[in-house]
Amino acid sequence: MRPVDLIIKKRDGGVLSPEEIDFLVQGFARDEIPDYQFAALLMAIVLKGMVPEETARLTRAMIESGDTWDLSGVPGPLVDKHSTGGVGDKISLILAPLAAACGLRVPMMSGRSLGHTGGTLDKLESIPGYRTDLSLAEFKRGLEEVGFAMIGQSETVVPADRRMYALRDVTGTVESIPLITASIMSKKFAEGAQSLVFDVKSGAGAFMKSRDQARALSRSLVATGAGLGRRVAALITDMDRPLGKKIGNFLEVEESIDCLRGKGPADEMDLTFRLAGWMLTLGGLCPDPKTGETRAREKLADGSAWKVFLQNVEFQGGDVESVLHPEKGPHARIIRPLAARAEGRLTRIDAYKVGIASVILGAGRSRQSDLVLPGVGITLLKEQGDAVAPGEELCLVQGEDETKVAEALRVLETAFETGDVGSAPGPRVLEEITQA
Amino acid sequence: MRPVDLIIKKRDGGVLSPEEIDFLVQGFARDEIPDYQFAALLMAIVLKGMVPEETARLTRAMIESGDTWDLSGVPGPLVDKHSTGGVGDKISLILAPLAAACGLRVPMMSGRSLGHTGGTLDKLESIPGYRTDLSLAEFKRGLEEVGFAMIGQSETVVPADRRMYALRDVTGTVESIPLITASIMSKKFAEGAQSLVFDVKSGAGAFMKSRDQARALSRSLVATGAGLGRRVAALITDMDRPLGKKIGNFLEVEESIDCLRGKGPADEMDLTFRLAGWMLTLGGLCPDPKTGETRAREKLADGSAWKVFLQNVEFQGGDVESVLHPEKGPHARIIRPLAARAEGRLTRIDAYKVGIASVILGAGRSRQSDLVLPGVGITLLKEQGDAVAPGEELCLVQGEDETKVAEALRVLETAFETGDVGSAPGPRVLEEITQA
Repeated sequence: MRPVDLIIKKRDGGVLSPEEIDFLVQGFARDEIPDYQFAALLMAIVLKGMVPEETARLTRAMIESGDTWDLSGVPGPLVDKHSTGGVGDKISLILAPLAAACGLRVPMMSGRSLGHTGGTLDKLESIPGYRTDLSLAEFKRGLEEVGFAMIGQSETVVPADRRMYALRDVTGTVESIPLITASIMSKKFAEGAQSLVFDVKSGAGAFMKSRDQARALSRSLVATGAGLGRRVAALITDMDRPLGKKIGNFLEVEESIDCLRGKGPADEMDLTFRLAGWMLTLGGLCPDPKTGETRAREKLADGSAWKVFLQNVEFQGGDVESVLHPEKGPHARIIRPLAARAEGRLTRIDAYKVGIASVILGAGRSRQSDLVLPGVGITLLKEQGDAVAPGEELCLVQGEDETKVAEALRVLETAFETGDVGSAPGPRVLEEITQA
Repeated sequence: MRPVDLIIKKRDGGVLSPEEIDFLVQGFARDEIPDYQFAALLMAIVLKGMVPEETARLTRAMIESGDTWDLSGVPGPLVDKHSTGGVGDKISLILAPLAAACGLRVPMMSGRSLGHTGGTLDKLESIPGYRTDLSLAEFKRGLEEVGFAMIGQSETVVPADRRMYALRDVTGTVESIPLITASIMSKKFAEGAQSLVFDVKSGAGAFMKSRDQARALSRSLVATGAGLGRRVAALITDMDRPLGKKIGNFLEVEESIDCLRGKGPADEMDLTFRLAGWMLTLGGLCPDPKTGETRAREKLADGSAWKVFLQNVEFQGGDVESVLHPEKGPHARIIRPLAARAEGRLTRIDAYKVGIASVILGAGRSRQSDLVLPGVGITLLKEQGDAVAPGEELCLVQGEDETKVAEALRVLETAFETGDVGSAPGPRVLEEITQA
């Protein structure tokens, strides 16, 4: 087999065989196929696509490029959730302890912020002392003793994805449903999850801007899961507006604590329960998502989820005091309100612009090497549909640097849109895509 | 400007601006844009194409990546011919002295054999002593004193094409009309030609297997010439069957000598005169191709072209004796005939298979590093439409190695197709594509 012949096959719209896909992924992972050949292949895949069988095999080949975590000794169904990323999306922090409190085991491998979206690892690490660099033994022990554990992507798990993503990022080959599917699925299954629920965000603040794109990715994830013999479901959820009220690292920890203590914003809680219902169903602990949702609501109301969260913070080395008393945690030095200019109703809060403003403040990264600040971010004071008067505060900008706060305020001014008629936001969950 | 944004623009079907194309080509030529980014761009160009303005700018940017030869001091119109390559295509050896004898100056930069097609440089160098590594000063003097000069592609002329071609070869991005156009045109205009006639081969023995592909390339060449403000014409010619009777390096020199002395095969001479007619027209020495053809026939018949050829051989250090008496030139040690098996008429001689057989004998290269043998090759004894009887000789195989001769014979057995009905071959020139 010669790489160039396989590139030409895909370029001309052919379907690569399992052996050909294995050859390409192994060759790339072992540095036997150079970047320039793989880049040409990636572009051909972006423009010619892959059939579901190819995507499933690509995923499998990527998993096999590195270590896979054997969690077979862990008692209980191993189920994870993955979000495609959004603004204010702190669901993992609430959902993982909640699902664990319901009897699942949640082996959660998360990422860091990049671009306008936040990252679960950065949020967790804003809790003083919290470690996400657990060893496999610690990770397993966390799953056994606490019920969930949070970890970063290891260097040795799916190394092909790491290299492939770096190449895709600089060659204009990120936007491809099969490549995105394989990248997500390979990491999730290599980490030891048995079943998976996807939260596929759709809208201005999401990676998939249109509902059609979100639907295409959801279908690809669900079909690839089936191809790999795993139970997978996907919820398409609205990310045109930010999720919850707080955006930033420790700010989102604070809001998660409110949620876990029963004081969370309604639409954030509803989404959490929907996802938990699906996790319990795929994990076989509940017969259907509705029943699962009811169980989850109980386990939140009775304080079980909050208790599991505290156990996890302690287990991963975090300062429990700053979780019990968030006012003792990291907070930004400067707080400035953004005031409404016109009278009217809020017709839209643009999640993308809010995300960009939070990155400017230092909550996220423009480059992989940037450091994030734990205390900075944005607190929304109004929501879509609310009536506002000139001078009324729309949000608070929390930062460490006057210049950046001023810059963030300029971006946020255009994020809030006002009109004569404004209605409350629509439902957060837009569609459910499930296996037949 | 970031390369990745331009890759994405082309991937999404956009039209790159002149500044963007310059940035990409310069960046690649200066090693500032890595191969993997350029490979992704090339694949996007293959699959999304380029409009004529982009192709013309790409050509210009490639020319500007290196030295251009200033031949402004040379008196007389500078006109060149370029063939896309075929089997038995020795036209340059006949046409260059003929066009020079008619008053043109022909600055001919040629290539070496690769794949199943021959290369003009290899053919010329089979004349003992013939040098193609002329300096610019020698090249100019050859044009002034003899009227034409033959040279190889210099390292410093269009370096971007050299690097780009090497990358295209291994990334499945060779088959692209705009990329092929820019590669050919940039070299031809950088070498100092003012006008150009293209011989675009079509058929089994050509790079463009179908007439549609040949037409698309011809139109692109002619349009790009217009975009660069040059006079360009293209003839689409049949390369389903080999050109002439002899295939191989010195064998083709021998046949060229026959042609220049008025004893060439009719269809080879007709093509030569057609091309000469167009060269004289584009160079402004004749009002139309018909008049040009008549002038060319005269200059061949009166021995002028032959005289100019001898002057060139002497000028470039070649052994004039072995041209005046080709029997003294290099000849293969082994000569074996291929005999017909069945009675019937020759319905086809497959140029591609004849080309492959000649490479096996050592007349061409499978790899760039292979050495070619001057004397080996194939002499056709029958042509399409001829009646053959079992045992009758179809061709002679001339080689240096018994094993390779046997292998070439096996390939040639399938190159000659026999049937009940066979007609003489159709015309060599299939279409003329010219500027409006």
